[in-house]
Amino acid sequence: MQGIAFQDAYPEELSHCYGCGKNNPHGHQLKSYWDGDETVAYFIPEPFHTAIPGFVYGGLIASLIDCHGTGSASAAALRALQDGGETDAEPPRFVTAALNIDYLAPTPMGVELELVGVIKEVKPRKVVVEITLSAAGIVCAKGHMVAVKMPDTMM
Amino acid sequence: MQGIAFQDAYPEELSHCYGCGKNNPHGHQLKSYWDGDETVAYFIPEPFHTAIPGFVYGGLIASLIDCHGTGSASAAALRALQDGGETDAEPPRFVTAALNIDYLAPTPMGVELELVGVIKEVKPRKVVVEITLSAAGIVCAKGHMVAVKMPDTMM
Repeated sequence: MQGIAFQDAYPEELSHCYGCGKNNPHGHQLKSYWDGDETVAYFIPEPFHTAIPGFVYGGLIASLIDCHGTGSASAAALRALQDGGETDAEPPRFVTAALNIDYLAPTPMGVELELVGVIKEVKPRKVVVEITLSAAGIVCAKGHMVAVKMPDTMM
Repeated sequence: MQGIAFQDAYPEELSHCYGCGKNNPHGHQLKSYWDGDETVAYFIPEPFHTAIPGFVYGGLIASLIDCHGTGSASAAALRALQDGGETDAEPPRFVTAALNIDYLAPTPMGVELELVGVIKEVKPRKVVVEITLSAAGIVCAKGHMVAVKMPDTMM
């Protein structure tokens, strides 16, 4: 992991997301980083984030995949801008257009979850990311996200 | 809406879900009901459930669609058992196998969200549900869920 978290590079006024905003004290504050060409994040669920006792609630899994995906999209788009010579570009903010999740195995409570993102496609206004969520080395969920640049109407 | 909420009919030991369990005081406690052949649920996000300020966080939207979908699956499976003559059947508990969400429009904060489920397929161990989430009459997200009967390994 290198540098500051993707989400911590968002502009202050766009840093209130419940899943990953550093300015949301109630939220999960997920933080994602580059690890080579992949992206990673780690999260330990709270004891009350249960589905069935002993297992993590699917909505939290979706949330973590969502925020890791949009963060990864922002970072990938920024890297593409920088590779194109825009060395002082600001990280563009992406939002989710489509999120598909396959729940492959029950996710156990009490262990750190690892999210890994693989960037599949980068265009100026659209990034596709595949995300796996693992617990204790076992892939419990796979996500496929289409993220789009945040529309001006949301600013 | 008629009868008790689907989620309130789950066995006590399976009622701890963060999204919809009546025994989880930290959670959303979403409650879903029949409305004819469709299912409905209503939810008002908390002020801190933001994505970008003014708009609801996508992870909450995924969570609500997820819990409304599994609740609807349970109710649809129970109705099928009852229609088959098992009038004293217990509601079977379903979990999510696959969840696909299209985010169609930013979901505004400060209004009640309406979830409507349409049952597309009912088998003893698999139910398919389509869910729309609307705010102030505008469909903001559509979900497609494949729910499967909870494996014994989760009990």
